[in-house]
Amino acid sequence: MNPVMMDRMSWIAYRDRIAEDSPVVFLPCGALEQHGPHLPLGTDALLATAVSAGVAARIDGIVAPALSYGYKSQPKCGGGQHFPGTTSLDASSLIQITRDVIRELARHGVRKLVVVVGHYENQWFVTEGIDLALRELGPACPLRVMRLEYWDFLTEQTLARVFPDGFPGFALEHAAVIETSLMLHHHPELVRMDLLPDDGPAHFPPYDTYPPRPQWVPPSGVLSSARGADAAKGATMSQELTERLVAAIRGEFAD
Amino acid sequence: MNPVMMDRMSWIAYRDRIAEDSPVVFLPCGALEQHGPHLPLGTDALLATAVSAGVAARIDGIVAPALSYGYKSQPKCGGGQHFPGTTSLDASSLIQITRDVIRELARHGVRKLVVVVGHYENQWFVTEGIDLALRELGPACPLRVMRLEYWDFLTEQTLARVFPDGFPGFALEHAAVIETSLMLHHHPELVRMDLLPDDGPAHFPPYDTYPPRPQWVPPSGVLSSARGADAAKGATMSQELTERLVAAIRGEFAD
Amino acid sequence: MNPVMMDRMSWIAYRDRIAEDSPVVFLPCGALEQHGPHLPLGTDALLATAVSAGVAARIDGIVAPALSYGYKSQPKCGGGQHFPGTTSLDASSLIQITRDVIRELARHGVRKLVVVVGHYENQWFVTEGIDLALRELGPACPLRVMRLEYWDFLTEQTLARVFPDGFPGFALEHAAVIETSLMLHHHPELVRMDLLPDDGPAHFPPYDTYPPRPQWVPPSGVLSSARGADAAKGATMSQELTERLVAAIRGEFAD
Amino acid sequence: MNPVMMDRMSWIAYRDRIAEDSPVVFLPCGALEQHGPHLPLGTDALLATAVSAGVAARIDGIVAPALSYGYKSQPKCGGGQHFPGTTSLDASSLIQITRDVIRELARHGVRKLVVVVGHYENQWFVTEGIDLALRELGPACPLRVMRLEYWDFLTEQTLARVFPDGFPGFALEHAAVIETSLMLHHHPELVRMDLLPDDGPAHFPPYDTYPPRPQWVPPSGVLSSARGADAAKGATMSQELTERLVAAIRGEFAD
Amino acid sequence: MNPVMMDRMSWIAYRDRIAEDSPVVFLPCGALEQHGPHLPLGTDALLATAVSAGVAARIDGIVAPALSYGYKSQPKCGGGQHFPGTTSLDASSLIQITRDVIRELARHGVRKLVVVVGHYENQWFVTEGIDLALRELGPACPLRVMRLEYWDFLTEQTLARVFPDGFPGFALEHAAVIETSLMLHHHPELVRMDLLPDDGPAHFPPYDTYPPRPQWVPPSGVLSSARGADAAKGATMSQELTERLVAAIRGEFAD
Amino acid sequence: MNPVMMDRMSWIAYRDRIAEDSPVVFLPCGALEQHGPHLPLGTDALLATAVSAGVAARIDGIVAPALSYGYKSQPKCGGGQHFPGTTSLDASSLIQITRDVIRELARHGVRKLVVVVGHYENQWFVTEGIDLALRELGPACPLRVMRLEYWDFLTEQTLARVFPDGFPGFALEHAAVIETSLMLHHHPELVRMDLLPDDGPAHFPPYDTYPPRPQWVPPSGVLSSARGADAAKGATMSQELTERLVAAIRGEFAD
Repeated sequence: MNPVMMDRMSWIAYRDRIAEDSPVVFLPCGALEQHGPHLPLGTDALLATAVSAGVAARIDGIVAPALSYGYKSQPKCGGGQHFPGTTSLDASSLIQITRDVIRELARHGVRKLVVVVGHYENQWFVTEGIDLALRELGPACPLRVMRLEYWDFLTEQTLARVFPDGFPGFALEHAAVIETSLMLHHHPELVRMDLLPDDGPAHFPPYDTYPPRPQWVPPSGVLSSARGADAAKGATMSQELTERLVAAIRGEFAD
Repeated sequence: MNPVMMDRMSWIAYRDRIAEDSPVVFLPCGALEQHGPHLPLGTDALLATAVSAGVAARIDGIVAPALSYGYKSQPKCGGGQHFPGTTSLDASSLIQITRDVIRELARHGVRKLVVVVGHYENQWFVTEGIDLALRELGPACPLRVMRLEYWDFLTEQTLARVFPDGFPGFALEHAAVIETSLMLHHHPELVRMDLLPDDGPAHFPPYDTYPPRPQWVPPSGVLSSARGADAAKGATMSQELTERLVAAIRGEFAD
Repeated sequence: MNPVMMDRMSWIAYRDRIAEDSPVVFLPCGALEQHGPHLPLGTDALLATAVSAGVAARIDGIVAPALSYGYKSQPKCGGGQHFPGTTSLDASSLIQITRDVIRELARHGVRKLVVVVGHYENQWFVTEGIDLALRELGPACPLRVMRLEYWDFLTEQTLARVFPDGFPGFALEHAAVIETSLMLHHHPELVRMDLLPDDGPAHFPPYDTYPPRPQWVPPSGVLSSARGADAAKGATMSQELTERLVAAIRGEFAD
Repeated sequence: MNPVMMDRMSWIAYRDRIAEDSPVVFLPCGALEQHGPHLPLGTDALLATAVSAGVAARIDGIVAPALSYGYKSQPKCGGGQHFPGTTSLDASSLIQITRDVIRELARHGVRKLVVVVGHYENQWFVTEGIDLALRELGPACPLRVMRLEYWDFLTEQTLARVFPDGFPGFALEHAAVIETSLMLHHHPELVRMDLLPDDGPAHFPPYDTYPPRPQWVPPSGVLSSARGADAAKGATMSQELTERLVAAIRGEFAD
Repeated sequence: MNPVMMDRMSWIAYRDRIAEDSPVVFLPCGALEQHGPHLPLGTDALLATAVSAGVAARIDGIVAPALSYGYKSQPKCGGGQHFPGTTSLDASSLIQITRDVIRELARHGVRKLVVVVGHYENQWFVTEGIDLALRELGPACPLRVMRLEYWDFLTEQTLARVFPDGFPGFALEHAAVIETSLMLHHHPELVRMDLLPDDGPAHFPPYDTYPPRPQWVPPSGVLSSARGADAAKGATMSQELTERLVAAIRGEFAD
Repeated sequence: MNPVMMDRMSWIAYRDRIAEDSPVVFLPCGALEQHGPHLPLGTDALLATAVSAGVAARIDGIVAPALSYGYKSQPKCGGGQHFPGTTSLDASSLIQITRDVIRELARHGVRKLVVVVGHYENQWFVTEGIDLALRELGPACPLRVMRLEYWDFLTEQTLARVFPDGFPGFALEHAAVIETSLMLHHHPELVRMDLLPDDGPAHFPPYDTYPPRPQWVPPSGVLSSARGADAAKGATMSQELTERLVAAIRGEFAD
């Protein structure tokens, strides 16, 4: 079947792997969210899965099925909930499924879990789900969890190469150069560079409003231009992410 | 990108499809659950998605990402929760994500939704999720929902051909002839016919126990033998499911 | 007071029984749901209680008060929620009261519990309630639970006698021959045979719709005719249910 | 069938009553709670139902099935949770079932509901359930609800007759003169006057402790002696409750 | 910083106090609720905090920040929810924050907690929060909790002095003599005696209605006149509350 | 009483203000969380309230009572949950109280609400609470909400003055120069500059672990040194926050 993807593995293969090697299990946390006209709605789940699979292949890890739906899109990081196609969960739903999946992995005997967030808005609710799971499992449970947003593993050097005119910061990197380059590397057939919008970078005030003001967000849903994205940059970043994640995970789970 | 799979479609393509054609949207509801040594843990999500995609391709529908995790496995229909790899949600989690996704699809303007259950244990919790969503959306919301377990669309004639010695009933059809044949048709690379167990059919009393008795369930997790499964049967069943689902959906959403 | 019905027993009598004999406790799970013009709304709770009391009388068991309200009626098994009088709970409510009652019985020292479902729609939510209770109580708790739908204990032979023209299956047995006969046996004063409707059997497609289509369901709420019901059949079935339940419970709780 | 008890009435009879007369519907809220050695565990539900039925018979009302389980017993009003047999719900469970039942009654067209509390501890959670139901139903819903603890309808004159040595107040009236007399009137077969304990009145400090101190509560569970209870007092109080409830309900629902 | 108020203490000071002296911690539970034209909306939190601080100063206790928002105001005890300014929580919210705060105090090593209710409507939901926290913490947790409504510590003698014409009972003491006198003692700058309304005492029937009838409640929100309130009475009552609370707490936590 | 603080205002004064001026209402969201040896546990609530009150005084606004307890402290922004004194809420509790308070303010007629977050970890749960409230209130509700973390209103120029050696970023600004300076300005009596720790700045990897590693966090709980903090910087920052918040709020609520 498949040595990495848990849903393409039999229970016996999975059981044996867990019992023998205590492998690192990855839980990618994505979303179904607009990513401009040139990227697919599933970009966050696809990239979180691709990053997880790349690392898992290197360290004999296992990737659980991604959480395909994430927390509600916010204007400043994902464009907001007014875009058709963006399909989001309430906080309590995301918290609970995270908790439930971790409870079950612990029952299987998993001791090393890496929760890979690919959708910025998920971070805090996933954190609560992890916390509730560990509280319920109790202090005797040997499960240890890392949670990370994968883009935080890009070095300044790499960002400098990807953004020769200066890295504008992660804040507007929605459907922009980083995600588009990574998609061109991992899923080129799902990128339509011919549809790249020219929306300039969004400018946001230092607060949020509810109901949100759609006029704050470029109509394309892209928060800053993806011009400059290419597959080579995606490969460079993907390789760095893999290397640095491998090192961090090995270090964290060494003892 | 992809004309059928919502997560591989841009939000603009999706928006236009919804606005122009009012297409049928499919929500496959799967599970991560043991399916014997010969089928992968993700079988239920894979088959619910395959069935949905087959129908959607015929009627210009759209398939939302599957719910990859389902309700707790029960001994009589899925072997039970004692198998490593089976990774299940609490009832309230499954209810809520179903409700949330439907609430969002309604916001997009979706009017025709088909919830395709591929994991028997999901049925009632998905039903509650649909009910809560519709109650919240209110009677003025034009969304109409069909919910179905796909195997209920197989005719007696087809079952007679698939089971030349007599159809033993759906009760024990977990990781058995139907699912194995369908997987051989849709995902042959994920089936290990060489690992097919010979466990005889399980015999269950007319009640359930909690905690469950693992000894009721064959050690392989297969409730009745998959001997007799082949890709041709899978193709036959797949074709019938598509035809009959197309007809039912067209009939239901015609008015 | 009363040696069987827990609510008609003093706490001291109950305490002594639990401490001395470790009796089997029964929790009937009913509903308040239309049962046609000839049966009362409380039929499911009345029958679940009657079956429980009959068995309890034989094995010195105790019957806790029935859950009088159940999960939402579905068109195919109970006619659906559009009937006045049908008074149903949300899933989470039914799950929680089941969990709470079981948690309390465990606190009392009950070790043997039989949850007797008399309303088909309750089954999965009661199951979740049992699971949540046992998870909370932890593996050291000695409580063991059986859950059953009482009609599953009728043998084919008896069904053949009750349905001389052939048993049409449990699917349409709502307010039909089995329930009407059992009510004629247990509560004849609550049956109005003079009001028996002649609605032919309902025909349902292999899917459900939401909102439901009331036209699928006979206007009387009876899914197949109760013609042929009589008290003698009720007595026969009641006796068989008692005998077979006694045997199953004794077997299950013997070790 | 039965003209008063909803669960012993067909849905058609119920529907016609609601449509024609807009009758008052009663929802008795009881408990399963120790009531000393001389009264049954179900006393609160039995009395709330008996009071409701008495009033309903006078004003052509309908009595819905009692909530048989109530909120956790407190030392000062019900003896506390340490008594075997006392079987209580978490707050959220009681709140939700109250909300659900009221939502359903409103759907049936009920416009006049009287929630009759027979278990002191239920009061606030039932209040929240009513509030949540009305909030969900919205201001256009014509349903109006009265909530009452039945003993508050006893006049000082009657209490003076029932307690010739002076009424000690409702605080300790658990399984004492009022409840015992009412049970002797309504359910004499369920009272064991021969087992009446002689525990003196309980004395409580002006605070509560958690975990509770069982030594605060007389071992019998009776907070003050039921000596002096008799059926005649029960009949007197029952008659007064009926008269005064009839008057209050007629007054409240007149406009 | 401050030796009594936890929020004005550093974590190190707090930690050392908990470790060295096992001090009594107080959790005042207030509300934001109308208190007539002469008292501020925060009266309940202010008085619960003042009472707690007075006692804590005597026994080297620590006062946690008050719960500033409480359960929904009821007509008979707080005037009801129709007053602007009254800002209340749903039951589940109040239950959960109570549970959460107690869970955290237990983690800090607190063994003696006094929950001081200053808003009548909070009592039962705070009780449930305490119960849920203790259930979660388990029987091995050394935390013991007292819960009290502070006015219950006033003696009959003091009430006779405060109400020379006879104490009408706590029922109507909302924004009346007791609260006004205590505010004149603790927070005179927040009392406007010149705005004291002359509304006579409210008269309520022995039931509640939903939706509530605002006409039951004096338009000022004061349930009985605060005429007769003065700072001296406030000082007298405050002193008695402190003395008697000190004694009760010392007694309860002595062993 | 008090013209700004809602809890020190009568309901009549509040009602009149809301009706006449449609004032901006502020909801400060704090925490009870370790802030090193030199700042009190309540720092976040105190500062969020001080900022709110400063702005409210300028624009005739009203400040509701702060949420005194916040979401669980995280190592990278607040030191983590292992510090005694840190007293945090579960996500669902914080979400619900935020939702409830906003629902109530909307009922009062409030149209302009500013939610002032003073505890970084609160942000996403407060966001969900706002979203749930607005969803429940419906699109016809005129309430508009701003949510902000107050420090985001500091300009680069001011930060350059406050940090002459270069602003290290907000990431480690927990109990450091900004908060300490602001406390010296607003609450000097609650700052112990003599206890200022010399812990160097914390260094965190680009991921989080659960259970957290306390060794990542300086033992004092201060993430970077507060050396350099003084009251003058606090006054400068406070003035800028007020000015810029006034401008933003006026602009946002002008139309």
